[in-house]
Amino acid sequence: MVFDVEHVLAGLTLEEKASLTSGSDFWHTQGVDRAGVPAVMVTDGPHGLRKQAEDADHLGLGASVPATCFPPAAALGSTWDPALLHRVGEALGRETRANDVAVLLGPGVNIKRTPLCGRNFEYVSEDPFVAGVLGTAIVAGIQSQGVGTSLKHFAANNQETDRMRVSADIDERTLREIYLPAFEAIVTNAQPWTVMCSYNKVNDTYASENHWLLTELLRDEWAFEGLVVSDWGAVHDRVPALTAGLDLQMPSAGSRPDDEVVAAVRAGTLDEAVLDVAVRRVLRLVERSLPGVRSQDTFDVDEHHALAREAAADGSVLLKNDPVDGTPLLPLTGDFLVVGEFARTPRYQGAGSSQVNPTRLDTALDALGDVPFEPGFTIAGGPEGDDEALRAAAVAAAREAATVVVFLGLPGPDESEGYDRPRLGLPDNQVALLEAVAAVNPRVVVVLANGSAVSVPWRGHAAAILETWLGGQAGGSAVADLLRGTRTPSGRLTETIPHRITDTPAFGNFPGEAGHVRYGEGVLVGYRWYDARELDVAYPFGHGLSYTTFAYSDVAATVSGTGSDAAVDVRVTVTNTGDRAGAEVVQVYVRDPEAAVLRPVRELKGFAKVVLEPGASQEVAIALDSRALSYWHPGLHRWVVEGGTFVVEVGASSRDLRDSVELEVEGEPTWGPLEAMSTVAEWFAHPVGGPLLQAALVPPAGVTIDDTMQAMMLEMPALTIADFGLAGFDRQALDRLVEQARAGS
Amino acid sequence: MVFDVEHVLAGLTLEEKASLTSGSDFWHTQGVDRAGVPAVMVTDGPHGLRKQAEDADHLGLGASVPATCFPPAAALGSTWDPALLHRVGEALGRETRANDVAVLLGPGVNIKRTPLCGRNFEYVSEDPFVAGVLGTAIVAGIQSQGVGTSLKHFAANNQETDRMRVSADIDERTLREIYLPAFEAIVTNAQPWTVMCSYNKVNDTYASENHWLLTELLRDEWAFEGLVVSDWGAVHDRVPALTAGLDLQMPSAGSRPDDEVVAAVRAGTLDEAVLDVAVRRVLRLVERSLPGVRSQDTFDVDEHHALAREAAADGSVLLKNDPVDGTPLLPLTGDFLVVGEFARTPRYQGAGSSQVNPTRLDTALDALGDVPFEPGFTIAGGPEGDDEALRAAAVAAAREAATVVVFLGLPGPDESEGYDRPRLGLPDNQVALLEAVAAVNPRVVVVLANGSAVSVPWRGHAAAILETWLGGQAGGSAVADLLRGTRTPSGRLTETIPHRITDTPAFGNFPGEAGHVRYGEGVLVGYRWYDARELDVAYPFGHGLSYTTFAYSDVAATVSGTGSDAAVDVRVTVTNTGDRAGAEVVQVYVRDPEAAVLRPVRELKGFAKVVLEPGASQEVAIALDSRALSYWHPGLHRWVVEGGTFVVEVGASSRDLRDSVELEVEGEPTWGPLEAMSTVAEWFAHPVGGPLLQAALVPPAGVTIDDTMQAMMLEMPALTIADFGLAGFDRQALDRLVEQARAGS
Repeated sequence: MVFDVEHVLAGLTLEEKASLTSGSDFWHTQGVDRAGVPAVMVTDGPHGLRKQAEDADHLGLGASVPATCFPPAAALGSTWDPALLHRVGEALGRETRANDVAVLLGPGVNIKRTPLCGRNFEYVSEDPFVAGVLGTAIVAGIQSQGVGTSLKHFAANNQETDRMRVSADIDERTLREIYLPAFEAIVTNAQPWTVMCSYNKVNDTYASENHWLLTELLRDEWAFEGLVVSDWGAVHDRVPALTAGLDLQMPSAGSRPDDEVVAAVRAGTLDEAVLDVAVRRVLRLVERSLPGVRSQDTFDVDEHHALAREAAADGSVLLKNDPVDGTPLLPLTGDFLVVGEFARTPRYQGAGSSQVNPTRLDTALDALGDVPFEPGFTIAGGPEGDDEALRAAAVAAAREAATVVVFLGLPGPDESEGYDRPRLGLPDNQVALLEAVAAVNPRVVVVLANGSAVSVPWRGHAAAILETWLGGQAGGSAVADLLRGTRTPSGRLTETIPHRITDTPAFGNFPGEAGHVRYGEGVLVGYRWYDARELDVAYPFGHGLSYTTFAYSDVAATVSGTGSDAAVDVRVTVTNTGDRAGAEVVQVYVRDPEAAVLRPVRELKGFAKVVLEPGASQEVAIALDSRALSYWHPGLHRWVVEGGTFVVEVGASSRDLRDSVELEVEGEPTWGPLEAMSTVAEWFAHPVGGPLLQAALVPPAGVTIDDTMQAMMLEMPALTIADFGLAGFDRQALDRLVEQARAGS
Repeated sequence: MVFDVEHVLAGLTLEEKASLTSGSDFWHTQGVDRAGVPAVMVTDGPHGLRKQAEDADHLGLGASVPATCFPPAAALGSTWDPALLHRVGEALGRETRANDVAVLLGPGVNIKRTPLCGRNFEYVSEDPFVAGVLGTAIVAGIQSQGVGTSLKHFAANNQETDRMRVSADIDERTLREIYLPAFEAIVTNAQPWTVMCSYNKVNDTYASENHWLLTELLRDEWAFEGLVVSDWGAVHDRVPALTAGLDLQMPSAGSRPDDEVVAAVRAGTLDEAVLDVAVRRVLRLVERSLPGVRSQDTFDVDEHHALAREAAADGSVLLKNDPVDGTPLLPLTGDFLVVGEFARTPRYQGAGSSQVNPTRLDTALDALGDVPFEPGFTIAGGPEGDDEALRAAAVAAAREAATVVVFLGLPGPDESEGYDRPRLGLPDNQVALLEAVAAVNPRVVVVLANGSAVSVPWRGHAAAILETWLGGQAGGSAVADLLRGTRTPSGRLTETIPHRITDTPAFGNFPGEAGHVRYGEGVLVGYRWYDARELDVAYPFGHGLSYTTFAYSDVAATVSGTGSDAAVDVRVTVTNTGDRAGAEVVQVYVRDPEAAVLRPVRELKGFAKVVLEPGASQEVAIALDSRALSYWHPGLHRWVVEGGTFVVEVGASSRDLRDSVELEVEGEPTWGPLEAMSTVAEWFAHPVGGPLLQAALVPPAGVTIDDTMQAMMLEMPALTIADFGLAGFDRQALDRLVEQARAGS
């Protein structure tokens, strides 16, 4: 059967068209039997399929069909491995197709503005560049299987508190440089079938009704070809939403919104052509979905589990591995005791709509084989007496143990969609356990399970710390692989681990008040904040150790082209200087020490993951385009490369930079048209206006311009100079200068 | 002669009325001879009269008649002494009247948002409460002499960079709690004759055209009775300015603006009644000025100089006075060497419109009598060789000296109206001198002269540090009084001295970009920031040592009334426990540990300066009204006292709190009307709606609400709950609940 979108569209009634722009229930679009338009199913992701049974609860958090629970994005992101994420995406796509589902609702690439965001485990990074590269890989992987994705939550949905109403108040430059680039990269590079608009408002307008966001930016600038679906319940008024560029309201809200669309078209307040555009996109989604829906594919549960195990291992970050008696504790070599309830009862995913019913579930305790175990604490924090008894037993065992591996983490209810985290730290009962164990045995390894950064004031009590994030269904075996050394850690932090909540960028501006959250830190999010503020952190962005070591040499960077055509070729040779194979993540940061705007100290603009045998070397080439040098000019409202000196830094983390290269870049004009209210400094910076004003600036007799007055005058508008009679021109003469400057530009 | 405002007004032509709303030249209003309306003169302040000769330069920075240069506001504020400031105000008023000037253009009470603001020396504090109390005293003092003041710069003029255009983007709560209260206190308590609107925009609208600022807030809410004059050159378009509530444009901008007013009235685009309101205020100013203008008063130059000396001494802050060999270096007891060019060439005021031509000028070197002196450095930072030679000579002398008093400070061009400071620290040549001197002699006293906080990374090289700010014309003798111990230091910091510019609240949001400066730190300005962020500082707000010591005892606080009628009576007994007379500044801070909004850790809400003989005790009573407990509710748009526990802290600085009292305060309602989009948590917090929703919230069969889902639901709008079918009500039923809740409230 050929499904001809235009033919179908032409045959639809107004009522049918209106119906196609909303869901029929929680998980299906509406079909039109008469016209041969089937309903298609979409289901939650992002790290596994959550296809609910037909009679499940309406919020959609009840039981779902078994599916592979891959590690959530926090761990996937920490792999810094697009190839691996493409493979995970392929597996997700196969499971989606095998379940007759058209679209998997993910990935989420919102920026981790604060570690307290309850949904950070579903997001990739505090940095838009790494989030964009990795999100592109996931989307491309999923869609390679003939099913769609939903890039979410567009945009500026960086907290759960009041998420259905709050206005994220963000200046344009911050949006462009921090909160939008991951979406932009994924849309332009991978064309997700759908983009999901977020619940919140962006600068006072609901994302679902935000024409700038859904049309001007997404369609006109980024050339998005797919469909915009609402987050579930994000549409409050469908007619303005359609006008803004929303195509599909989910889930069903009954017939009311469809009726409103029909009435608006009849009343002439909604152009039917606007409706047609949305319907066309829905029909195009149906058309794309047909082959997948008709397939009878299956997937290999064991193979996907193995892939989940690989991803969980590579997404774990070895934060610390100090030698004890001359040798690092990891990988484990002798006998050891396992302590901590999480070894037996793993935290492997977060709560909310992303919760997958896994095909199986590994625990570290099982995977580590026959090892002694003490639970040490209750996850939920039981009666104090219970924890004390568990702690005493663990300490007694630890005193006799060669090495102690302590599994700590956040209790499940701490991290969920729908509300934000109550605290940055681990629960007191866990910290008390660790301190008690460390007091009797210095050979302590901590294994962490949490979906977003936790503070680690206790880190002095552990010689080694392995951050596993939430590892998905195979996380237990993955951590065993790492602890035993059958696999070498290669994950790197995509989020800074700060010392205290009071150090974090959004502190004081989170979660907002009275329906508004001010993004007061501007572009200084994540490491950009800690670097600019010169703040010490527990573990910096990009950090992660291996069981081997790497050396950097022959760092070079050369620039070609100018302005928006500038490009930089970065080269570095990486050598595995240890005695086992491992992977290094080479990171390229760019600094622009002098600019007309405050720029972050450094920004990640390229990276590559390199696997090297012991002693092996490889030259890594990383290409940067002009965007890597640009900032969003808040006055000109476009990206600009401001000429001058740039510094390219190459290293193993944002605070372990091994070498740098200075580059001279020829920029593009950054001046706007001169006006009478332009300051003298702005006039002087203008190639045409500068000499004109300089010639006209003749102080009247008797007025002496000393250094202080000259400094004052630079900040003054030329008009003020004229009005104050400080120079040899009046308002009229100044107007002529403005004309001349514009004519000559 | 009786000057009858209404009679004069009735007799004026439209052209004459228009002319009265602008200046005739730089310093005079326009008169109307025909109608018996004289021109009146206004001149710069704020810490001395700057009456220019008639033929001076038009920017107005040239020579002026001699007048007493009192210490600028940075030092006056540090006295924490309203009685002293009233006396200084009286003296300023006498000099103003003696010069036939109607209005002295000051004081300035803008908040010190960043230490880099070039004009901070003209402002009182980073804290609005102390700025309001001290500004009230100055205004009342000046106006007690029958001349007027101009409270400036209204409002949010917290930087010099781009000050004539920049939009200060500030949320309402921050404006209300930080940037406006000093103005509010002074207007309501002292009724300045005029308020001067600032150059900048406030939230995108020029202050000169800002109806909310100049009329709704200033007139309607605060009942301001005087006239609004523009900062010099702040009016860009007089017709909208008049409409907004501006009365007088200064200086003259020729006949054009007057003509525009006449044309607008004729065209019907400006109601003549609006013009009449402004003219009436100008005439009222003329009426008030007549007695002063006609006076033949003089003032006592010596007496005013003595008062300036007293103010300079009491405005100096003894930051540090560590014992060396068991005894603090200050007051000086034996021989000493004076080092530092500032001892001979004092910095005693800032640059720009506040620059006074002093009646005389004391230097510390002269005032200290016959002491050896080495300049040590060049203030302007001459050729390196010069500084090296001066340094070498100073070090040689210091090696032989019993004690070394080193005068350091900021070079004059660092601090001026019209541009911001280039750096937080002292110049390198001065720090190098100090280090070299300290290396040969541990008995080092540093005397600082600067108009705003400087960083003090070198403070370990000085056993004692005396911050004199800018001391006015008698600063030199005042510092000698303090060093010799003929006067005891009693100043306290009204601004935090931070370690680094990267620690400061506005860092990253100063000075803004592309015409906007985002006040991203919100209410966390000054010590509110350092306390909330748990940042160490060099010297905290409120800090200052004495040559004697004080003990606090019997701290008590009792609350009376409730809600907006609540009041707190604070009592504390202070005892001079040292061996010389001195003054202590007792400070009362309030904390509200739990609130619906993020509140600062503590806020200054009361203080008293107490002079005590050795061994003497005094009970100090400080009364707080409900404002001391309130915050500006961003949703209700009014002040609210939120009930619960408050903590009253009493101490000698914001980080030297001697005792605290917990109070239970009965608050007022802080809930607004419920809506369908109100969250479940908001419903539950409502006394009527809570029980209604609770009763209606019956989950449908088969849906289990666990803890996580319950936490999610609390954040959800009731409407979303209804749409998702999670409870026993639909949209229509919810609408009925809303009606019931409103009816029952």
